[in-house]
Amino acid sequence: MMAESEFEIIRRYFTPHGPRRDDVLAGVGDDAAIVRVPPDRDLVLCMDTLVAGVHFPVATEPAAIGHKALAVNLSDLAAMGAEPAWATLALTLPESDGAWLERFSRGFLELAERYRLQLIGGDLSRGPLSITVEAHGFVVPGKAMRRRGARPGDLVCVTGSLGDAGLALELGEQAPARLRRRLEYPEPRIAAGLVLREHASAAIDVSDGLLADLAHLLEPDGLGAALQIDALPRSPEFTAALPAGPRGDALSLDLPLSGGDDYELCFCLPQGLQAPVAALLGAVSCALTPVGVIEAQPGIRCYYPDGRRYSPRATGYQHFGHEGR
Amino acid sequence: MMAESEFEIIRRYFTPHGPRRDDVLAGVGDDAAIVRVPPDRDLVLCMDTLVAGVHFPVATEPAAIGHKALAVNLSDLAAMGAEPAWATLALTLPESDGAWLERFSRGFLELAERYRLQLIGGDLSRGPLSITVEAHGFVVPGKAMRRRGARPGDLVCVTGSLGDAGLALELGEQAPARLRRRLEYPEPRIAAGLVLREHASAAIDVSDGLLADLAHLLEPDGLGAALQIDALPRSPEFTAALPAGPRGDALSLDLPLSGGDDYELCFCLPQGLQAPVAALLGAVSCALTPVGVIEAQPGIRCYYPDGRRYSPRATGYQHFGHEGR
Repeated sequence: MMAESEFEIIRRYFTPHGPRRDDVLAGVGDDAAIVRVPPDRDLVLCMDTLVAGVHFPVATEPAAIGHKALAVNLSDLAAMGAEPAWATLALTLPESDGAWLERFSRGFLELAERYRLQLIGGDLSRGPLSITVEAHGFVVPGKAMRRRGARPGDLVCVTGSLGDAGLALELGEQAPARLRRRLEYPEPRIAAGLVLREHASAAIDVSDGLLADLAHLLEPDGLGAALQIDALPRSPEFTAALPAGPRGDALSLDLPLSGGDDYELCFCLPQGLQAPVAALLGAVSCALTPVGVIEAQPGIRCYYPDGRRYSPRATGYQHFGHEGR
Repeated sequence: MMAESEFEIIRRYFTPHGPRRDDVLAGVGDDAAIVRVPPDRDLVLCMDTLVAGVHFPVATEPAAIGHKALAVNLSDLAAMGAEPAWATLALTLPESDGAWLERFSRGFLELAERYRLQLIGGDLSRGPLSITVEAHGFVVPGKAMRRRGARPGDLVCVTGSLGDAGLALELGEQAPARLRRRLEYPEPRIAAGLVLREHASAAIDVSDGLLADLAHLLEPDGLGAALQIDALPRSPEFTAALPAGPRGDALSLDLPLSGGDDYELCFCLPQGLQAPVAALLGAVSCALTPVGVIEAQPGIRCYYPDGRRYSPRATGYQHFGHEGR
């Protein structure tokens, strides 16, 4: 719907690049795409929008926008334990800007390449800058991880480290390159999701902050959790970049609990599985850290090592009330 | 990603309504939806965006926006001969407005109901008003209609009538209600598409105007077409609402050829199939009108009944040059 140039833009920046899959019978260029889902797989679908000025500053490097628009969707597939297959892209642009499109498409397609994901269709429109992606993946029937399913006594675990993206946002231009990379080029935990779907009782990706996303996982089952705040995994870059003094002390707790945009997985493991699952995740270069335990009593309670309660100051993009706020 | 209220909005306006399908294993409310494609079907996917102020005036009735956001996608499924199954919806809104959402969701879900289509997921964001929908449908493998496939000598046909939406846009507030309805509540030609996929050699939906969309169908095969302008199907409402004088004379040709937003199907039929296919379409209350013939020479040529050439003044949202402009 972008006058003359829509087809030319797609042909120039998107179609010639990226993986080609045998299960795509018709990709970009017809009224719709035609694809084939393997007969022994269910299809997993998710859709997320990034709006300029809301989810990212307008001046963000276009390659980072392209990467992130796909990554946030692949993170949802990872949280289900799905294997990525295809994506569609709706790109709304104020004007046709070749240099911007070249960098945006490079960011998008480099990530697609890494997961053998094919861009099969979409739409280009004129309007305020906004990107909507739908990602499509496969799961073995009955094997998808869900938000529901945790049981009291299960360990609450997270992959990787928390708070890096939040600290990059907090520090702005002063943020070290490795923290900025965590914010701008989040790496979806696809390989970890494929491992975890055989073992985890429930899972969600951490997009809005641990407390908010864990609440989404607990709420449908009416469960709660006790978290040990000293156990929250922080990266060396995070610890090194924290400001000195009380502000740094506060951020060192607030960001791992409530900072968004980390795109790690939060998942629950039945007792006894921690060591074997940590070994399996280690094989895909992913750390596992237990941070708490599922409890029957609703709400999330945070504890210092000495057993005192800690009351989080902020809870991220939170949809449900919970105790301790 | 709309702070506190995203889940509440979805729960209130979208989740409790609309069809429920057995092939949806997980719908709205997890990280992603899980669905099952029948083993003897391929999956057809399309995605279209409507931007306020670009594709519709901001003050458009919200029910019409909801209807049209889904209808333009179902029209793409119709052009492939696909049977609708599911949709995802990315809705970006400047603010959470209950009255607007109630009417938008009603327009969207009433159309979904008619085609037994289930809303299985999506995203709500804050930002300039914009709607992206992905529609998912099924086809028997090898049976989808494509843009490619027409042969010289095939009849070029269209469903229904052309120019109604264009005239409604042209007349603005003065447009009669039935023409306005064609613009604001387009009816996707799903039933016609299911009939045509057994017989048509190629098909496309008419969203940008007949000349522009027919060019998309011809260009990949390097073909052309001769159109008889007196054959273009015009509705009684169209003819009655045309202004008198030279402006009306010009519009009576320009709009059926180049007006967008009609969402009829343009398709090609091998010679001899016109009568039987017209009978099959009649059974689903859809008119078939032959408007021309496919030719080996590239370009679209328009003719008056006396054989003189007519040169169209405008060609709609056209992506490819063609002769006669």
